[in-house]
Amino acid sequence: MGSYLAKIDGPQDLKKLSRGELKCLAEEIRGAIVDRVDAIGGHLGSNLGAVEAEIALHYVFDAPDDKIVFDVSHQCYTHKALTGRRGILEEGSYRDYVGFTDYRESPYDHFSVGHTSTSVSLASGLAKARDLKGTSENVIAFIGDGSLSGGIAFEGLDYAAEMGTNFIVVFNDNEMSIAEPHGGIYRNISELRRTNGKCEQNLFRAIGFDYRYVENGNDIDALVDAFTEVKDIDHPVVVHIHTEKGLGSDWAVKDKEPGHYGQPKGFKPSGVKGSNEYTREFLEAKIAADPMVCVINAATPSAFGMNRAWREKMGCRFVDVGIAEEHAVAMISGMARGGAKPVYAVYGTFLQRTFDQLMQEFALNNAPAVILVLDAGIGTGDVTHNGTYIGSMLATIPNIKAYAPSNLEDYFALLDWAIEQTEYSVVIHVPAAVCKDDAPIDPASADRYQIMRHGSRVALIGFGNKFSLAAAVADGLRADGIMPTLIDPVIYSSVDTETLDLLAADHDIVVTVEDNQKDGGFGEKIAAYYGAGEVKVLTYGATKEYVTNEPYGEVMKRYRMTEEQILEDIRRLL
Amino acid sequence: MGSYLAKIDGPQDLKKLSRGELKCLAEEIRGAIVDRVDAIGGHLGSNLGAVEAEIALHYVFDAPDDKIVFDVSHQCYTHKALTGRRGILEEGSYRDYVGFTDYRESPYDHFSVGHTSTSVSLASGLAKARDLKGTSENVIAFIGDGSLSGGIAFEGLDYAAEMGTNFIVVFNDNEMSIAEPHGGIYRNISELRRTNGKCEQNLFRAIGFDYRYVENGNDIDALVDAFTEVKDIDHPVVVHIHTEKGLGSDWAVKDKEPGHYGQPKGFKPSGVKGSNEYTREFLEAKIAADPMVCVINAATPSAFGMNRAWREKMGCRFVDVGIAEEHAVAMISGMARGGAKPVYAVYGTFLQRTFDQLMQEFALNNAPAVILVLDAGIGTGDVTHNGTYIGSMLATIPNIKAYAPSNLEDYFALLDWAIEQTEYSVVIHVPAAVCKDDAPIDPASADRYQIMRHGSRVALIGFGNKFSLAAAVADGLRADGIMPTLIDPVIYSSVDTETLDLLAADHDIVVTVEDNQKDGGFGEKIAAYYGAGEVKVLTYGATKEYVTNEPYGEVMKRYRMTEEQILEDIRRLL
Repeated sequence: MGSYLAKIDGPQDLKKLSRGELKCLAEEIRGAIVDRVDAIGGHLGSNLGAVEAEIALHYVFDAPDDKIVFDVSHQCYTHKALTGRRGILEEGSYRDYVGFTDYRESPYDHFSVGHTSTSVSLASGLAKARDLKGTSENVIAFIGDGSLSGGIAFEGLDYAAEMGTNFIVVFNDNEMSIAEPHGGIYRNISELRRTNGKCEQNLFRAIGFDYRYVENGNDIDALVDAFTEVKDIDHPVVVHIHTEKGLGSDWAVKDKEPGHYGQPKGFKPSGVKGSNEYTREFLEAKIAADPMVCVINAATPSAFGMNRAWREKMGCRFVDVGIAEEHAVAMISGMARGGAKPVYAVYGTFLQRTFDQLMQEFALNNAPAVILVLDAGIGTGDVTHNGTYIGSMLATIPNIKAYAPSNLEDYFALLDWAIEQTEYSVVIHVPAAVCKDDAPIDPASADRYQIMRHGSRVALIGFGNKFSLAAAVADGLRADGIMPTLIDPVIYSSVDTETLDLLAADHDIVVTVEDNQKDGGFGEKIAAYYGAGEVKVLTYGATKEYVTNEPYGEVMKRYRMTEEQILEDIRRLL
Repeated sequence: MGSYLAKIDGPQDLKKLSRGELKCLAEEIRGAIVDRVDAIGGHLGSNLGAVEAEIALHYVFDAPDDKIVFDVSHQCYTHKALTGRRGILEEGSYRDYVGFTDYRESPYDHFSVGHTSTSVSLASGLAKARDLKGTSENVIAFIGDGSLSGGIAFEGLDYAAEMGTNFIVVFNDNEMSIAEPHGGIYRNISELRRTNGKCEQNLFRAIGFDYRYVENGNDIDALVDAFTEVKDIDHPVVVHIHTEKGLGSDWAVKDKEPGHYGQPKGFKPSGVKGSNEYTREFLEAKIAADPMVCVINAATPSAFGMNRAWREKMGCRFVDVGIAEEHAVAMISGMARGGAKPVYAVYGTFLQRTFDQLMQEFALNNAPAVILVLDAGIGTGDVTHNGTYIGSMLATIPNIKAYAPSNLEDYFALLDWAIEQTEYSVVIHVPAAVCKDDAPIDPASADRYQIMRHGSRVALIGFGNKFSLAAAVADGLRADGIMPTLIDPVIYSSVDTETLDLLAADHDIVVTVEDNQKDGGFGEKIAAYYGAGEVKVLTYGATKEYVTNEPYGEVMKRYRMTEEQILEDIRRLL
């Protein structure tokens, strides 16, 4: 650890440094960020690009009285290191700090966040509270150019522009989202950069903000000057700083999209093809075969390995709408009603941003579009990025056919059918790359559960990626001399009551195991269906709670979702 | 019926009229709109203001090949009348047509919509489909100034501005949302009006659109000229038309906020105070007593009778954020974390627009803010405005305390507690104005169900406004010699397992009746809890489906949610 950071226990220590020393500190932090990401992985480009800006903010403003709110907060390493948490950049304590801001971790972090575009709204709430209290601290929202395309960022700016009091937006423009940013506003932002902030049209002024431009957003002197100028300002202002994403890492500067997130040094991709690569290949073939097929994504194309070369090859048949998930859902609804065959590929956690569009534009209009949900299912990583809840959310909405296939064969059979059909709004969870030794599902009968093995007394229904767990439990029961029925429901937007009625005749216990939250899930519906009957129902799924960075296996134990635990429960009941 | 409209079976007949005749037609339609609203109620101001624009659109463009998408579509009466559905303005057939566009009703309606701000995204999907097909029809989004503050409108504009092909946005600026519009952009829009579209800053140009301005948006000649000029344009353009909301109705022009929606002639408010008025009075008292209390609303203040005079009286203690529900949820989260006491009053159907903000900004941050949900519960009116789903949506999210009180006493006890406490993110459904002859709930023990009457064999649990139905069923059972237990759960975000365990000892049947959808609802959780036990559970709630303009009583019968039907089911099971 270098000589400057070691002495900084909080912003008060930072303020003792000369401007020259600030620059040395910046280099030291930059090196430490690279080391941290090399050691344990993490957001690289966004953190490297914002080092000077965060030093300058803490040098000029007086946090935590002055309140800085980071958008997404995947760029907060420097902020954390300067506010009593330099351990985030020290070997041996890297893992003591989450990679996002967390209000429980420090009074300098006002919010736990991880999704984009909400910083301005959150900060405007802090500013409104300040104005009610009658205090006079500065409130600062720090937001990247990628985040600006999200609708709520605009809602926040639109509101904040009307405030007649102090409000500072630091617009961190590194010319990138995760991939290149998309949307008409980026022409204006590019023109602002080209003209040193002086061109006639100015999106921020049009919304009602005062405006400053800093061309070299990695120059501490320029930043300190600009922030000093707006400190204690009495009206809303945007300080547009032009930074270099990945600065300090040659490869992250050169190749900004993969440089957004760095894997630990020595990390090797498994080399085994995953579901996402199979999906990309499948979609590419569909695109080649049918001029109406079009793939839509909202700023995370790398999720499906849809890298720049692939996107260019697809031309107008691939659309990245930027961080604009709500638009994506309404747009595919429009495309489908206009006769196209759109496939929207999205992470489950981000599909959460579109509940109302799914209900109103998509499902109510019976738009025959397809939504592919990635990382749906119980997650135990960053609290803001878990797919645990998405199945329950989708199951709330009428008129959607939602499937969670357990294997690639069923998945591609459903995907192919879903693209070609013109009657239904379809959602499909992308399964783990598991194959089955059986014919794929017949999509025409996918409203019915798939009975994989007929038996009696006990029926196991395993949802999505948890089908294999249900199958393992079934095997365990056979050792007890029971021949259980094993069911892969595949569909989860409705209950196959005919099959449930048949099961009731010669089964005492139905066990549901789902890769989803229990509340609002699939098991509860089955329990309610059998509520007045004789069949006992055991339901397994995630507890309704927030989970952050816990080992998956331990969480499964906590939910009693191991083979042994489920067997134990069944045996007790038998 | 006047002499022009009677001859119009479709736009082809409109095109035969002279410009002078178009003006006569406009007057005729205007009178017919007033008559319709006088007869059966409906959106008045928005329809009156857009008469000429819709005539001009159908005169210039060739629908349905050219595709017009109406935002919210609460201004579509003229459009419907001109496209083979003049019955919408004819006595005797008013009720044959819904007040919004409906794709099942006519090929001229491309979507069923009713929530705001989605027209540009939907239309951009139609345009993308057109470009994939290689056809050349015009695509037009017709959006009001109020709708422009919704984030997805910005997302749509941002995307559409990048399209290199025909795309026309008719921006219908009547200087009003339902109430006055809010947000910084409205200063720019006002400046555009003042300068005849010529001022330097131009929000639409900053986003990347070409731009035209029509000062008199109720002048058919000017509109026909402007639309003719942009017809078949090869790039995205905004045509900003300045219209008069309510034109043709003196009172609706003079008093634009109440004039937004007209009640049938002879309609008299009941004079009985409703929950919303009590709520407004309660909040006013809280505001007077505590400088940190602040009420937030998103463009529907009249919902709580928070009219202009009231809003002005409240000053900075009332905030209308405009149509920006996502912002509202993030902002109150920021306010609460900043020490204020925000109360966000919102219709359930619009709270749907904020699932992700509720999950990430509100609940994850334990923001001690209060959300009051209006019209939560089973709705059978316009398909886009029913509160049937909101309870299930909210029950999916961890860390929210959600209550559906059945009476005003419990409601105000909870509301008062929720405002003052600093630990929980709280949602409360506004109940019907029902009183109880009992002490109000103790909020400190509101995690436990409220047992209103102890009994045995059968327990009835009635959720929210359906508590009274559960109570009626209980009375019915007493006639059979059964003394049932009657429970008002109040809380629905968690299950009171202790009480359920107690019930299991001397109850055979638990019956849940909820003012909410069954899927993802409260009853399913109770059924799952008892899944492996001996207690039988009967669950009553709405079916997962879209309902539009059906008589409430008939829908209740369909769901078996009448006293007689529930009694019949219980008796059969006993």
